[in-house]
Amino acid sequence: MNKVQITIRVRYVETDRMGIAHHTHYFSWMEQARTELMRQNGLSYRDLEERGYMLPVREAHCRYRHALSYDDEVKIQAELLEIGGASLKIGYRLYGKDTGMPAAEGYTVHPFTDKNGKIVKVPRFFSALFQDGKK
Amino acid sequence: MNKVQITIRVRYVETDRMGIAHHTHYFSWMEQARTELMRQNGLSYRDLEERGYMLPVREAHCRYRHALSYDDEVKIQAELLEIGGASLKIGYRLYGKDTGMPAAEGYTVHPFTDKNGKIVKVPRFFSALFQDGKK
Amino acid sequence: MNKVQITIRVRYVETDRMGIAHHTHYFSWMEQARTELMRQNGLSYRDLEERGYMLPVREAHCRYRHALSYDDEVKIQAELLEIGGASLKIGYRLYGKDTGMPAAEGYTVHPFTDKNGKIVKVPRFFSALFQDGKK
Amino acid sequence: MNKVQITIRVRYVETDRMGIAHHTHYFSWMEQARTELMRQNGLSYRDLEERGYMLPVREAHCRYRHALSYDDEVKIQAELLEIGGASLKIGYRLYGKDTGMPAAEGYTVHPFTDKNGKIVKVPRFFSALFQDGKK
Repeated sequence: MNKVQITIRVRYVETDRMGIAHHTHYFSWMEQARTELMRQNGLSYRDLEERGYMLPVREAHCRYRHALSYDDEVKIQAELLEIGGASLKIGYRLYGKDTGMPAAEGYTVHPFTDKNGKIVKVPRFFSALFQDGKK
Repeated sequence: MNKVQITIRVRYVETDRMGIAHHTHYFSWMEQARTELMRQNGLSYRDLEERGYMLPVREAHCRYRHALSYDDEVKIQAELLEIGGASLKIGYRLYGKDTGMPAAEGYTVHPFTDKNGKIVKVPRFFSALFQDGKK
Repeated sequence: MNKVQITIRVRYVETDRMGIAHHTHYFSWMEQARTELMRQNGLSYRDLEERGYMLPVREAHCRYRHALSYDDEVKIQAELLEIGGASLKIGYRLYGKDTGMPAAEGYTVHPFTDKNGKIVKVPRFFSALFQDGKK
Repeated sequence: MNKVQITIRVRYVETDRMGIAHHTHYFSWMEQARTELMRQNGLSYRDLEERGYMLPVREAHCRYRHALSYDDEVKIQAELLEIGGASLKIGYRLYGKDTGMPAAEGYTVHPFTDKNGKIVKVPRFFSALFQDGKK
């Protein structure tokens, strides 16, 4: 499964004085969605770290469309876009659960590193999780 | 003055269990730097909002280079890259104060809106702040 | 219903370099729980604000017991402890979903204010939500 | 020196849709102030962790008085209140830099632990930092 969808609710602490969700929090929601993408493919990110791997963020991008308000329910879709020799690219789409309105889209790029932050090849057990037909 | 530089210190709350500054906070630091860019040109962002304008974020991008650790001092340079009919583009460079190592770079794009979020033209008093030779 | 329970999962962004959930986030989780306490009594906090009332925080306290780690599921119980002339007191208990271990407990106190921040009496429709036997 | 004072500025990301600084951030500001309290006594908290000690939070309390707004400058005073056999208590006072108005006060309690989170006695080199006359 290369795609997953979660629903979150905009928390009060995530709003700002414009009355809308502050743009920084979208990146945390994307992180939550990619955590679930991995979990639903059978490997929690916590397990991955326990095996000695890390996925820091090399690049993050977000394009904001319609503002989100306090208490709005937001759907966030995360999709594995690329899995290269030493990195992953994940894409995201956010939209209002009730309105269906696109709220934002973005992507993140992650190198695979060992515990010391040294870049390593994507381990085979990891890429195997995302083969077609799996789950 | 189209460029400004601030120094911040990575706070404990901004680290994560990898032991480094979490990637989402870079966007808050960029926001701090663009706030100072405006202030040093004679208009605080608070004043701008009091005049009935807002600068929401339409796009945000960051490319991470060298990780930052707890208590590191970080220099953040913000520079006005473009000022178009209805939007601004601001670029950022982050680097370690002691090491001089590039930590990250990024940009944000902001439409000008009125109080109701409707996009408006960049007001003349605003673009005048950034003319050459000013200040 | 004077008591409600929610489950959250510790997000990566909420951990710190000690490897555990940073203490500040417990207050956001409490806020999430009290939001649900109100919703389950038939009035969302958003609706309350739309009626012209606000519930700022006058006092917040937390006693931390067992640390929480990344990806832990946490149960948070919120309970209305007191509803006085012009304020509310809400108590919270947090514990690990899997372990059942107490993680923390705390309380918050909230005056009722109008839109301008002026303290007002607890409106009758609000206290009526929490009468015995309701729901 | 048992007391120190820092000045911070309320960041946009720290405001909420009430238009004021969200109550959770006061605890991060207190953390910044106690970091400086230690640094000014000659030991950064980072050094302390490198020596194998940690100061997790056992208790945190805040009493909010006057709300703080975006871009307000805030003075935060941190003071060592007690240094017991195995823990510290630190008190905080926050007030508006321009207005002098008290904004909040609070305290935190911290056990001393080793790297594994086991509680240990306050090390002698630490309590020596806070003796009278010592700067």
